[in-house]
Amino acid sequence: MKETKEVVIVGAGFGGLQAVKKLAKRKDLNITLIDRANHHLFQPLLYQVATAVLSPADIAIPSRSLTENCKNVTVIMSNVTAIDKEKRIIFFNDRALKYDYLILAMGAKTSYFGNKEWEKYTIGLKSLTDALKLRKKILFSFEDAENYPENAGKLLKYIIIGGGPTGVELAGSIAELSHNIIRKDFRKIDTSKAEVILIEGGARLLPTFDAGLSDYSKQSLEKRGVKVYLNTKVKNIEEGRVFTESRMFEANTIIWAAGVEPVPFSRELGFQTDRAGRVIVNKFCSVDSNPEIFIIGDMAAFTDDEGKLLPGVSPVAMQQGRYAARTIVNDIKKKERTPFRYIDKGSMATIGRKDAVAELGKVKYKGLFGWLSWLGLHIFYLVGFKNKISILLTWMWSYLTFGAGARVIQSPIDVKDTEVY
Amino acid sequence: MKETKEVVIVGAGFGGLQAVKKLAKRKDLNITLIDRANHHLFQPLLYQVATAVLSPADIAIPSRSLTENCKNVTVIMSNVTAIDKEKRIIFFNDRALKYDYLILAMGAKTSYFGNKEWEKYTIGLKSLTDALKLRKKILFSFEDAENYPENAGKLLKYIIIGGGPTGVELAGSIAELSHNIIRKDFRKIDTSKAEVILIEGGARLLPTFDAGLSDYSKQSLEKRGVKVYLNTKVKNIEEGRVFTESRMFEANTIIWAAGVEPVPFSRELGFQTDRAGRVIVNKFCSVDSNPEIFIIGDMAAFTDDEGKLLPGVSPVAMQQGRYAARTIVNDIKKKERTPFRYIDKGSMATIGRKDAVAELGKVKYKGLFGWLSWLGLHIFYLVGFKNKISILLTWMWSYLTFGAGARVIQSPIDVKDTEVY
Repeated sequence: MKETKEVVIVGAGFGGLQAVKKLAKRKDLNITLIDRANHHLFQPLLYQVATAVLSPADIAIPSRSLTENCKNVTVIMSNVTAIDKEKRIIFFNDRALKYDYLILAMGAKTSYFGNKEWEKYTIGLKSLTDALKLRKKILFSFEDAENYPENAGKLLKYIIIGGGPTGVELAGSIAELSHNIIRKDFRKIDTSKAEVILIEGGARLLPTFDAGLSDYSKQSLEKRGVKVYLNTKVKNIEEGRVFTESRMFEANTIIWAAGVEPVPFSRELGFQTDRAGRVIVNKFCSVDSNPEIFIIGDMAAFTDDEGKLLPGVSPVAMQQGRYAARTIVNDIKKKERTPFRYIDKGSMATIGRKDAVAELGKVKYKGLFGWLSWLGLHIFYLVGFKNKISILLTWMWSYLTFGAGARVIQSPIDVKDTEVY
Repeated sequence: MKETKEVVIVGAGFGGLQAVKKLAKRKDLNITLIDRANHHLFQPLLYQVATAVLSPADIAIPSRSLTENCKNVTVIMSNVTAIDKEKRIIFFNDRALKYDYLILAMGAKTSYFGNKEWEKYTIGLKSLTDALKLRKKILFSFEDAENYPENAGKLLKYIIIGGGPTGVELAGSIAELSHNIIRKDFRKIDTSKAEVILIEGGARLLPTFDAGLSDYSKQSLEKRGVKVYLNTKVKNIEEGRVFTESRMFEANTIIWAAGVEPVPFSRELGFQTDRAGRVIVNKFCSVDSNPEIFIIGDMAAFTDDEGKLLPGVSPVAMQQGRYAARTIVNDIKKKERTPFRYIDKGSMATIGRKDAVAELGKVKYKGLFGWLSWLGLHIFYLVGFKNKISILLTWMWSYLTFGAGARVIQSPIDVKDTEVY
């Protein structure tokens, strides 16, 4: 009888989940999936929860539901606190577990690049909690402006810092929400006068995309009423204020979408990390000292054959997750390891209704066709079946009625300050 | 030119909303709807949010969306703090508004019948916040039990106090959730061993229903594994403990569904109230001293011609809301007021999948047919169109797959204690 190997996977994100799926059907393995949350989060649509189009349950699928039919998979909702690499033991809360193989796929968190105090004055967008906080903040800005129209100018100003996909998508959808969707809902304020400001430090939006698409995105956002400031570096942030080199912006809502960094745990592993804190991995998505440990996704700094660092995007994490799983299976079969190779299938970002940019290899799409590709691919990649139908329906409905489906402030006005959402 | 009258409606529940709908199209009226929440809540389905079947947005529709096409309706999200009955001014936060007519439909809140300290140890079910708190508590009880199987006995025990519709529906759906839906999700615990205990002080469940349906509900719940204790009065509640006259129950989750009382504001109006705090209204849903003020729904004690107090259920509130609106229109036309008459169309409560009791006049349904009536009527009464499709879809999906659609814990494990949900 074959020996059963223990595989522990930390993180139910894109990378971890692919590894679980790939290993779930093997009888010679015991899989344990550990995550702080009880769900896999479809992060690319997080901004739609933040802008009241989708509900949390539309983009979050309980990890237990995803693995309920995989008898060799145990899900643990817990916080990993330490790893004993010698004895191959992983610690979480007051429990511990022995592993033969470990896949670390714990992802990233919002990075303030050393300005931790800015966290107090801004809202990031990495978790459901963030998205619900932001949704509440945005929805209350309209309510407060309707109650106090004399303050509408400041209340209806939204600053988004960071011109990557998250920043572009947020700017586009806050503009859409305020300028169109909810315009008829208010009597004392004109929400179409809301100001959406997008600040980017570099010379163009979507810097990882083709320059033509960057220009197109800027024009398209401007047509939708977003004010785009390029080459504008943020020097300081205070309550309701953003300072750049040359001026000061005032706004009630300041959103930080300027960057992420790996979870702090990646620095505590005792492996070599890069400046951002990512574990520097070898061509096998592992480290030479501990080939039984794989580090994948946003936690890892993987340099490809051309010397290029792979970007922190979901396709990298997913391919590395499948690779790590395959490599474990090959290890058990005593096959030699083959290096990981990333296949770039392109990237896309949505700007608004009927408008997105997509770059698939040499092919570039923009406008309606880009948007349709974006729509199709996102629905295709949503993991749960029910979610696909529900989101499709919600989107169709929003599209037809110009309505936002999830504009619910979950708590009444008098618990506004004491509870988060 | 006709004078425009100011009508202020407080509360976007069943009563208030019917009044708004009825008055919204009249050009000689200005309507202001004030509510603490930004949404109308379909309370009869709140227990489905609490047991992770539906999402908040499925049963909560923003008041602004409901009235966006009614130009004479202004929605204010605020807390009403006082009324100057002499000058006919209503105060909310630091603002005030003059009214010609006032409809107070502020509803009820959970009542502990003088034992306020029990609130700390139990969870009620009157708002979305309550439902999300309860959902989180229930979902975490399974997670904690999986992490610490040695404590599973206590963690998987759920006490529901109160055998009215809310208690029966909660008991049925917690039993369904634990005994069936999520059973395959866990590896170290058998969730079918979860104990669901329903405690009722009176001699039967659903005391406002026909006695035959009460018996049926009890048997049906017992078949689903719920332990029903009748004639069992709660004497004291402590952390994790419920004391009755003869014994003590221990459980991690204690749900209080034993009763409601009007919002405290009803006692502050200076009108005569009954022992529960409801304003004693005349046959015009008003008070003799202030015919321009209507008090409807759970805030009001209305005694019908037979001397019977109308129950605190949504059909009463809805009919009174429409009546108040009609009476205002007639007042303006100088027509004499006619008394309000309640038409009892019956009541229903669901016990579980394919099982409900319904009493429609002399006709009584139970089992599958009761459930189908319940399903149809609830979908019919859901206000927003999108919600109807989405809920129907969610239900069909849950039904086919035995899955709970919204089993998402919105915050990760380490914010468990500091944030509410």
